[in-house]
Amino acid sequence: MISEKMVALVKNSSVIRAMFEEGKRLSELYGAENVFDFSLGNPSVEPPEEIKKALTCVINEESPNLVHGYMNNSGYEDVREAVAEHINKEHGTDFHAQNIVMTVGAAGGLNVILKTLLNPGDEVIVFAPFFGEYRNYVSNFDGELVVVSPDTTSFQPNLLEFEQKITAKTKAVIVNTPNNPTGVVYSRQTVEELAAILHKKQRELKTSIYLISDEPYRELAYDGVEVPYLTKYYSNTIVGYSFSKSLSLPGERIGYLAIPGEIDDFENVVQAANVANRILGYVNAPSLIQRAVARCLDAKVSLEHYNRNRELLYHTLADYGYECVKPQGAFYLFVKALEEDDREFAERAKKYNLLIVPGSSFGCPGYCRIAYCVDYAMIERSLPKFKELAEEYK
Amino acid sequence: MISEKMVALVKNSSVIRAMFEEGKRLSELYGAENVFDFSLGNPSVEPPEEIKKALTCVINEESPNLVHGYMNNSGYEDVREAVAEHINKEHGTDFHAQNIVMTVGAAGGLNVILKTLLNPGDEVIVFAPFFGEYRNYVSNFDGELVVVSPDTTSFQPNLLEFEQKITAKTKAVIVNTPNNPTGVVYSRQTVEELAAILHKKQRELKTSIYLISDEPYRELAYDGVEVPYLTKYYSNTIVGYSFSKSLSLPGERIGYLAIPGEIDDFENVVQAANVANRILGYVNAPSLIQRAVARCLDAKVSLEHYNRNRELLYHTLADYGYECVKPQGAFYLFVKALEEDDREFAERAKKYNLLIVPGSSFGCPGYCRIAYCVDYAMIERSLPKFKELAEEYK
Repeated sequence: MISEKMVALVKNSSVIRAMFEEGKRLSELYGAENVFDFSLGNPSVEPPEEIKKALTCVINEESPNLVHGYMNNSGYEDVREAVAEHINKEHGTDFHAQNIVMTVGAAGGLNVILKTLLNPGDEVIVFAPFFGEYRNYVSNFDGELVVVSPDTTSFQPNLLEFEQKITAKTKAVIVNTPNNPTGVVYSRQTVEELAAILHKKQRELKTSIYLISDEPYRELAYDGVEVPYLTKYYSNTIVGYSFSKSLSLPGERIGYLAIPGEIDDFENVVQAANVANRILGYVNAPSLIQRAVARCLDAKVSLEHYNRNRELLYHTLADYGYECVKPQGAFYLFVKALEEDDREFAERAKKYNLLIVPGSSFGCPGYCRIAYCVDYAMIERSLPKFKELAEEYK
Repeated sequence: MISEKMVALVKNSSVIRAMFEEGKRLSELYGAENVFDFSLGNPSVEPPEEIKKALTCVINEESPNLVHGYMNNSGYEDVREAVAEHINKEHGTDFHAQNIVMTVGAAGGLNVILKTLLNPGDEVIVFAPFFGEYRNYVSNFDGELVVVSPDTTSFQPNLLEFEQKITAKTKAVIVNTPNNPTGVVYSRQTVEELAAILHKKQRELKTSIYLISDEPYRELAYDGVEVPYLTKYYSNTIVGYSFSKSLSLPGERIGYLAIPGEIDDFENVVQAANVANRILGYVNAPSLIQRAVARCLDAKVSLEHYNRNRELLYHTLADYGYECVKPQGAFYLFVKALEEDDREFAERAKKYNLLIVPGSSFGCPGYCRIAYCVDYAMIERSLPKFKELAEEYK
């Protein structure tokens, strides 16, 4: 009785989420300390202390009807102004409240902007490996996902193929840096080349191609690496941000779209995003947490924890013979599977209670994603298992 | 550059929301005390004290990673169990956690269940007058909205026409009682007749027709009137609930779907709803507020305030010559416009700084909606204006 689209979707229901549930099942069976769940990007680091303080202040000091009531569908004016000023301070942009739409996380933001832009059949380009949900988000609005194949030596985007895949039907390009699942950060050079291709193709095709920058991992960058702010390189850029990882609040569903005044058709895009936020059933980003994050825009989770995890896991797995590009951001390792079939490999890992996600879920077979946003001690306990798994293949 | 669908939507952007913004503009111009904004269902009654206590407890006593982290896309297991038990206690149902999907308000819930059920071209029946957003929600999934014309004597559903409009393509029927915009509560007799028609038509057509009960106003019922719980009258019923009005939390975006085990294709529907919640970009209902409402399921806003408003406004407007069915629930009066064109009438009202919403927005021209979820004192101040407006037409 359910819709045909949903029949297929239920069947292929997110491998990642299924693993999350599988992890809970195995924990009950073997004890939580003997299951090594690297499947989900659910931060293990607690939100910074500022969040608790901010929530407490908002609850005790602000009017309940303001805090829990409706506001403009794009969010509270003062919250949007605070977000705009924060971005300006960090990145030298010139945003105001009207450039910001508060959204139900980055997922909500992406759906809002895709609803705003896409006619059925419009093409949206993504670079493999990519967050698998992009496929569903684009399909929600009957767009066509166009996948650029991965460059598995560096996991920087394959720009030669990108240029070839841009057509008159290309409406948007989604990039995600620091990247899920590789942890790779697009270098300034990469961004400049990408922007040059887009500029050239816009001129050639006489179309507008919007670059959608999905940035839940912006604040998670290691070794002082620069994460270029894309609006400064390409004027048709729209940023989708989330506080899920930067403040460890993934369950709260809070993020924003930053829509620069320079983009083509700005007035309509901003107004349509406001309407889309409403009619997609979000109505508005959750209110209390909007007001709370506005009070701690300078706060960040401790990166040190993730960095320690990264160093331990990367170096030890390398010692065991696993191949992997060292990630500079996010909290994922994207490791080459030890056999051709990544799904088989992930199944084999499960025998050691190691839960990792096949790269096929990210449009990149032959690899697996290991989310290291977990306890350090769990990583330590898991290492002998990774070793045994590697030895199976020797 | 925006999508064709959105061009039209932006143009006809919600009259109600536009009024909300207009109200803010007029307030700046004439002073807030001289503007009488009856346009939006934004509760004026504060949330019950339990909400503040619950939020404070959750923030101080529960683990931050639990409170702000990801959970199953359908919501926390313990929250869903608590919600199920509460409904069982109130309505003698037999729900468990697996019957409950926590959603981003009722709007989120409706979109989730429509995404779950609708193939393009499937028909969804609504009874005029109806909440205008149903049109957008059904259109989100390329469904066809089929409108049953209003019975303006009682504003109970027109069941004769309803029966005629059910076809083999009818996938769902949305009802909303207590009703927005009329405040009418469907009587037990109405519900029994509606259920009988659905049963008969299901047998005749050999299809499943789901009854979606949109219940944000369930708790707002006056004079001890009974609001029948629809799952008990028709087994293919799915309930969409919201805490927006019952706890004055509309900005928080928190509600649930209750999906009884008796509905056709239960397993698939429940699983698809879980997936739909994820891929529509909600991911899950906001986490902190999920945990907070679970602690105060027995709490309710004070009905006394709304009841006082209802009595004052209903009786005074009747004295002035306005025609209106006395509402038994929600916080709206649906008043006959004093001229044929309800949009003209609402414009005329605006000259008195009275903001009311034309019935055309609800598929029922010739009427206007007055939301009385406002301060009593504002209603008192507005009455001379309603009188002057009525006198214009004498």
